[in-house]
Amino acid sequence: MKVLIVGASGTLGRAVAAELGERHEIVTAGRSGGDLRVDLRDSESIEAMYRELGKLDAVVCAAGKVPFAPLAELTEAKYVEGLQDKLLGQVRLVQLGVDSLHDGGSFTLITGILTEQPILAGACASMVNGAVEGYVRGAAIELPRGIRINVVSPSVLSEAMASYGPYFRGFEPVSAARAALAFSRSVEGRETGKIYKVW
Amino acid sequence: MKVLIVGASGTLGRAVAAELGERHEIVTAGRSGGDLRVDLRDSESIEAMYRELGKLDAVVCAAGKVPFAPLAELTEAKYVEGLQDKLLGQVRLVQLGVDSLHDGGSFTLITGILTEQPILAGACASMVNGAVEGYVRGAAIELPRGIRINVVSPSVLSEAMASYGPYFRGFEPVSAARAALAFSRSVEGRETGKIYKVW
Repeated sequence: MKVLIVGASGTLGRAVAAELGERHEIVTAGRSGGDLRVDLRDSESIEAMYRELGKLDAVVCAAGKVPFAPLAELTEAKYVEGLQDKLLGQVRLVQLGVDSLHDGGSFTLITGILTEQPILAGACASMVNGAVEGYVRGAAIELPRGIRINVVSPSVLSEAMASYGPYFRGFEPVSAARAALAFSRSVEGRETGKIYKVW
Repeated sequence: MKVLIVGASGTLGRAVAAELGERHEIVTAGRSGGDLRVDLRDSESIEAMYRELGKLDAVVCAAGKVPFAPLAELTEAKYVEGLQDKLLGQVRLVQLGVDSLHDGGSFTLITGILTEQPILAGACASMVNGAVEGYVRGAAIELPRGIRINVVSPSVLSEAMASYGPYFRGFEPVSAARAALAFSRSVEGRETGKIYKVW
């Protein structure tokens, strides 16, 4: 399979590339690293990437930022920033990528444990993750030609505990390699509309 | 209790007003009807409403629109339209209303069954509902002074089947009066961060 990984230079993206790279042809893209540059906030940038790549069997996203701030400091601009990046960025990746996928191809998006298990300063993250998961459930029943869509929702990554640890006290971290297995299951399995929780 | 109901002229809003009106003082607001006019897409309109009302014990929302269209026809503008109305409209109602609530007061928002059970042409609705539910989980642990927040997620309303029936074949409809009970439970109970599913 030819697999595009967006955000492949991050901790999770590298683990997904390592897992899928054992059996598949990997192409990477990212805001600042990878075989191709792409900014998910910009439709034209995404369209240019897909034109460059030709037909694909799977599109994997391990990218998306949201602002973290106490609830009282979450301005409308901050909510919109998170929606534009991690939500609409991934929605654009799907909507603009359907024609690039072979029949039976797949999209695998990324959310995280905060959808269901909130932390302080994480309301925008919980909101954006919930939106991505709702979108995946809705899109799964409408994508044409057997194209599938799933989402991986990991707990905080072990590799990120040095920086995120104080926000996730008591959460059981998971390794990026373990989270990468869920991406493999989405890409190499046959399910659709699933939320693979890795926690 | 003094309870504000936004969207009180709709089918669900009227049922909530009937249920809570038996025991509480009700003030209604809406885009086109109610004691006060408010447009949830406009922060200034919401701020003006709260200034007019003074202190409240509960804010209930039974308003919020999302566009329905086949996945392939859901443009970015349509996604943003749904996010601006049913998601950010409700987020604004909360963020701008905290100071108007007495200690221990509550917000009760509205989503719907599509978060978890998708229909054709409903990807934007599933996305927006998922976002509202994520936001409620996140906000619940940060609201000050014992202020609570919950969300009611009803199935399609019996009263709406004449118009929505073709989209919801096989779904078991619920009466607006039954959905209104969940609002009562949120307002008059003590739980927070809950998604009351009425289906």
